[in-house]
Amino acid sequence: MSGNSFGQIFKITTCGESHGGAVAVIVDGCPSGLFISEADIQSELDRRKPGQSNITTPRAESDIIHILSGVFEGKTTGTPILLLAYNKDARSQDYDELKKIFRPSHADFTYLHKYGMRDYRGSGRASARETLARVAAGAIARKFLAEKLGIEILSYVEQVGNIITNIDVTKVCLADVESNIIRCPDIVVAPQMITLVEKVKQQGDSIGGVVKCVIKNVPIGLGEPVFDKLHADLGKAMLSINAVKGFEIGSGFAGVAQLGSEHNDSFVLKDSQEATLTNNAGGVLGGISNGEDIYFRVAFKPVSTINKEQQTLNLDNEAVTVKAEGRHDPCVLPRAVPIVDAMAALVIMDHYLRQQIYAMNRGVTS
Amino acid sequence: MSGNSFGQIFKITTCGESHGGAVAVIVDGCPSGLFISEADIQSELDRRKPGQSNITTPRAESDIIHILSGVFEGKTTGTPILLLAYNKDARSQDYDELKKIFRPSHADFTYLHKYGMRDYRGSGRASARETLARVAAGAIARKFLAEKLGIEILSYVEQVGNIITNIDVTKVCLADVESNIIRCPDIVVAPQMITLVEKVKQQGDSIGGVVKCVIKNVPIGLGEPVFDKLHADLGKAMLSINAVKGFEIGSGFAGVAQLGSEHNDSFVLKDSQEATLTNNAGGVLGGISNGEDIYFRVAFKPVSTINKEQQTLNLDNEAVTVKAEGRHDPCVLPRAVPIVDAMAALVIMDHYLRQQIYAMNRGVTS
Amino acid sequence: MSGNSFGQIFKITTCGESHGGAVAVIVDGCPSGLFISEADIQSELDRRKPGQSNITTPRAESDIIHILSGVFEGKTTGTPILLLAYNKDARSQDYDELKKIFRPSHADFTYLHKYGMRDYRGSGRASARETLARVAAGAIARKFLAEKLGIEILSYVEQVGNIITNIDVTKVCLADVESNIIRCPDIVVAPQMITLVEKVKQQGDSIGGVVKCVIKNVPIGLGEPVFDKLHADLGKAMLSINAVKGFEIGSGFAGVAQLGSEHNDSFVLKDSQEATLTNNAGGVLGGISNGEDIYFRVAFKPVSTINKEQQTLNLDNEAVTVKAEGRHDPCVLPRAVPIVDAMAALVIMDHYLRQQIYAMNRGVTS
Amino acid sequence: MSGNSFGQIFKITTCGESHGGAVAVIVDGCPSGLFISEADIQSELDRRKPGQSNITTPRAESDIIHILSGVFEGKTTGTPILLLAYNKDARSQDYDELKKIFRPSHADFTYLHKYGMRDYRGSGRASARETLARVAAGAIARKFLAEKLGIEILSYVEQVGNIITNIDVTKVCLADVESNIIRCPDIVVAPQMITLVEKVKQQGDSIGGVVKCVIKNVPIGLGEPVFDKLHADLGKAMLSINAVKGFEIGSGFAGVAQLGSEHNDSFVLKDSQEATLTNNAGGVLGGISNGEDIYFRVAFKPVSTINKEQQTLNLDNEAVTVKAEGRHDPCVLPRAVPIVDAMAALVIMDHYLRQQIYAMNRGVTS
Repeated sequence: MSGNSFGQIFKITTCGESHGGAVAVIVDGCPSGLFISEADIQSELDRRKPGQSNITTPRAESDIIHILSGVFEGKTTGTPILLLAYNKDARSQDYDELKKIFRPSHADFTYLHKYGMRDYRGSGRASARETLARVAAGAIARKFLAEKLGIEILSYVEQVGNIITNIDVTKVCLADVESNIIRCPDIVVAPQMITLVEKVKQQGDSIGGVVKCVIKNVPIGLGEPVFDKLHADLGKAMLSINAVKGFEIGSGFAGVAQLGSEHNDSFVLKDSQEATLTNNAGGVLGGISNGEDIYFRVAFKPVSTINKEQQTLNLDNEAVTVKAEGRHDPCVLPRAVPIVDAMAALVIMDHYLRQQIYAMNRGVTS
Repeated sequence: MSGNSFGQIFKITTCGESHGGAVAVIVDGCPSGLFISEADIQSELDRRKPGQSNITTPRAESDIIHILSGVFEGKTTGTPILLLAYNKDARSQDYDELKKIFRPSHADFTYLHKYGMRDYRGSGRASARETLARVAAGAIARKFLAEKLGIEILSYVEQVGNIITNIDVTKVCLADVESNIIRCPDIVVAPQMITLVEKVKQQGDSIGGVVKCVIKNVPIGLGEPVFDKLHADLGKAMLSINAVKGFEIGSGFAGVAQLGSEHNDSFVLKDSQEATLTNNAGGVLGGISNGEDIYFRVAFKPVSTINKEQQTLNLDNEAVTVKAEGRHDPCVLPRAVPIVDAMAALVIMDHYLRQQIYAMNRGVTS
Repeated sequence: MSGNSFGQIFKITTCGESHGGAVAVIVDGCPSGLFISEADIQSELDRRKPGQSNITTPRAESDIIHILSGVFEGKTTGTPILLLAYNKDARSQDYDELKKIFRPSHADFTYLHKYGMRDYRGSGRASARETLARVAAGAIARKFLAEKLGIEILSYVEQVGNIITNIDVTKVCLADVESNIIRCPDIVVAPQMITLVEKVKQQGDSIGGVVKCVIKNVPIGLGEPVFDKLHADLGKAMLSINAVKGFEIGSGFAGVAQLGSEHNDSFVLKDSQEATLTNNAGGVLGGISNGEDIYFRVAFKPVSTINKEQQTLNLDNEAVTVKAEGRHDPCVLPRAVPIVDAMAALVIMDHYLRQQIYAMNRGVTS
Repeated sequence: MSGNSFGQIFKITTCGESHGGAVAVIVDGCPSGLFISEADIQSELDRRKPGQSNITTPRAESDIIHILSGVFEGKTTGTPILLLAYNKDARSQDYDELKKIFRPSHADFTYLHKYGMRDYRGSGRASARETLARVAAGAIARKFLAEKLGIEILSYVEQVGNIITNIDVTKVCLADVESNIIRCPDIVVAPQMITLVEKVKQQGDSIGGVVKCVIKNVPIGLGEPVFDKLHADLGKAMLSINAVKGFEIGSGFAGVAQLGSEHNDSFVLKDSQEATLTNNAGGVLGGISNGEDIYFRVAFKPVSTINKEQQTLNLDNEAVTVKAEGRHDPCVLPRAVPIVDAMAALVIMDHYLRQQIYAMNRGVTS
């Protein structure tokens, strides 16, 4: 009800502010018998953490994950799993001057009006530090999907500012994504993106971009018709990530200019398997996976925190200027990649478990 | 769990297939004391119904709505409201030849694999006839929002194929939208859109487009942080509508190419009220409404049913051709407008009621 | 949120007032492929309907059930099932004199204060007519459980007033329950109960009683630990039935006086199967079914409507007397039996489907 | 879905096993602005903790509570609150001999069958140590209800074995309950109960009992009709507590033997306020609070762990004997009192917040 949970069967509930005691997540509904270790989760968190390169924020956040329940003798038990990372680098004083100011395009203003108060230390609950919990939970889902079903989830930076790669999504692999600090698998375009981010950083400014995600080997049948269509839940998942302003699947916005006869994906046999000749649908028909690759794009606006003087109001409604000092990401895209991976994993995992109910029981009487 | 419900407090559950006995919806969680009549609902349904003009399908569906519970002496009682429309024009024989075929880009294939069977009459549950229930329920939400809070929800066709209007969203009114059969308020562009749809119809083909929606007078504070951000729920609502492939709010995909210093919306006073100078955010900060206009765009692919021969497979995996005869929409956009209105109303209504819990109780001890 | 839904996966949402247009229920989450007909449901409704005998109310309610969605060619399709019965015998004028009065122990007073208004015709939403929807939905669950799993659910009247049967619960069968109008399978005690009810009826009064329910052949493993223990959900289901004031499972309130060494059920082998020597637990350990018979008792208070003059207040807080004329049940127990059956079926069905998720996926990696 | 959450708006999710890293709870949906400290919570936990007296288990569990999120400058912020207690006294070796045995009336057997594995250390997730999380969360709800609404929740031990107090529930106060180690406010009966428990303890056995709870000053209107009746949710809450086998509200099981004319509670004016002359209903009419005291009884079976030799099976289905050594509660009742308090507080808090939605919005148009 308060928006801190996601999923119906594989359900996560996150908690924690930027500068409170800890950021944590309870993962409820995970099947028993899955081998999971803190190392399995830590490796995903390390892709999200600050200070990875000279184009991310130098904040030294402490992202060491602890498993405090739900795992016994190395395996999940079917009971809720608590994952927790303590907050250590809490330099609250950095934020003292901002406590009376509504930073432009931040959530300071809306939180104060919604709750009648706010935790002004580093954006409080609105901080992207919350996504640490998502990545930790998503790591469990990804492991299950990969080991049990061979499902591969692969996100990468497709666009930064106006620089875009047209690399074939079906040929991207994780090694290519991780081969450079911007997480774009196109070896020609990646350096251009990095140069742009460095330039923006020097200006004290920020820049947006697009993450593309492809999910391979999804079984036919995931997604519930009507309101919980698979792509509707993927869309919600992505739009819930900080700074996201748009989502499109398959042909997306470009597809609106096509004729039906161009856009329709004909069914054909490929290697004796039912398949579609094209994939404008993006792997989903009527809200249900059809076995083709699922691919979608996620638009991230430029980060709101910049080292430039900006006009705003304070709590007394006086016009003031604000200028962030020090640590922030000039471009959130490289660190957004594992977050998109995680949210995609959570959606697919949840719908996989939901589908089991039907897969088990259909055709019950004859 | 099965995806037939939407909302948390103002919660709707829809049922009904294209050619079953009825399409219906239970609206649960509506406050008591709202005057509501069948006429209030029928007027919205009439905007959605087939056969409105020569550019919509000539199917004469029976969309007469009946209120069967939850209303007493003209007012809601706080108990669940059953809205029901019988299916009358059920010419099932029209679909007999299609029962063994997977129509391209339809849900025939995925429903059969998901459930092990399917109701092949007119797409069954996957039919857009289900949206009748959404529009009926949305009419109640719209009336509440308008009467109690003065909230205005206004959708219109912004784009058909490559024809697009750049009309100022803040100046659009309902009369302009309803002034022509394509529901585009731009009197120059609307005729061009209509001409395009007529041409596509003559070719037996279909074409996509974009619906834009603006929501005015939304109170500050709606939306739950983290997973149930207001725009994440709007996005899910829109992506759950048949044929939708994309959603963007505020600056959307175009915003990714901006610098933070360009994109940020400065807080200023307007008429002594806190406001933002620009509105790239689209009325939402940190997932919570900030009092500015909420506006977003929804991409609709071209309708899958076309009067052209297409390649596909039948249930025996044999290559066959299929060609729809007779009745279909060459362009779903004009009829999609009231559906977008309805889904927007449902999201805002639900989040308004959710927000009441906090608005009532904050600052409980001092 | 508004309390009109029950279940998590096999989820029902009911609607309808005593004298509105219809009483209906949407059954969502039913597996596909189950043969179900209106006759299957009607037979359960006929056990609940008024006017069955001279010890039930003579009201001739119209309880003809219609299946309006979710069933195709005689089988469930996996989409939501709408079951609906029109209200025909709506003699609203019978209730005109009661519209300004708070009847003792009825919900008139609390509904008015909760909603600021009330539908005063025949108790409105608080009427036990709502249980018609439960019985209809429960009939689908019962059929699934019986046909797929061989689960038998068997309720009967164990006590009326101070008259109680000590019949062995494991030996009761449906034919015995249905062999008399009080639905007590004990041929010695049943006539005594009937005589008591007839006497109470002549006095214009009412009397309470206890329904006992036994559920046989439940698989091991149903029930979720901690909050959704199987018996906690059974308890909630029963306590949600009109007039119920108590619930106990297994040894219940009597067990509190036992020593642990007396109460504990030893594990033993029976026919080479794990079993317990005694069954004080009532078939549930740690909230999870253990394969033994589940049995529980449900206490129904005497019906509030009586043909005797009673003291009360009217809407103006004036002391007045009230005396019901005509039609009411002197003892709700015989008609409560199918309602207890239905609610039990709904709980077991829901937990069976929930359990499938775990049964399918445990031990995923090795 | 997995049964680890309770509540709809004031929603708690608990995690943690008896011998894992920690027991914790996320409290989601708490209004902002409530002053809450670790000391406020600790005082409730201290009433639940082991080793309080010579009639409770001497286990020295570490029940120090930590608030790790959701509280800023001493007040709740409206974001999720993480409460956590580390497990320190984890002598897992105590349980090594039991890992291959199904203890009678414990959950060993059902957990193993449900999940395909189990955490055998101290009952794992089935341990009553989980109730620590409930009491911690309940302490927040109790503080809110007391400070904002003046609601008082008061549980006490009414019965141990066959020893029962008939003390007037309306005259009990907290000081009387806390005046002795059995938590029975009757100074004559309490010593008899204590003597009985001491005798049972010497025998290495255990004994059950009944907790009675009264809730005063509840506003009229709490509870949702039909399925989420206030007493149905109270019943579920109580039945979800370890060892509970029965629940009854108001007249309960005894009321079934009354005539309607005896049982009905007449409406009268008391101090110019609407009230009822008697309170057989237990403060709830039609599932909605009527402003009278809510009172109910909860039956606890004797603890399953006893220091006596018992017959059972091991994992290989061989007949073996088992005898617990050392630490256990001979009677869980005194420690159950704060758990009943906590669960009652959680139910009332959740329904209070749910009711706000209606209280705010009814009569919206005129």
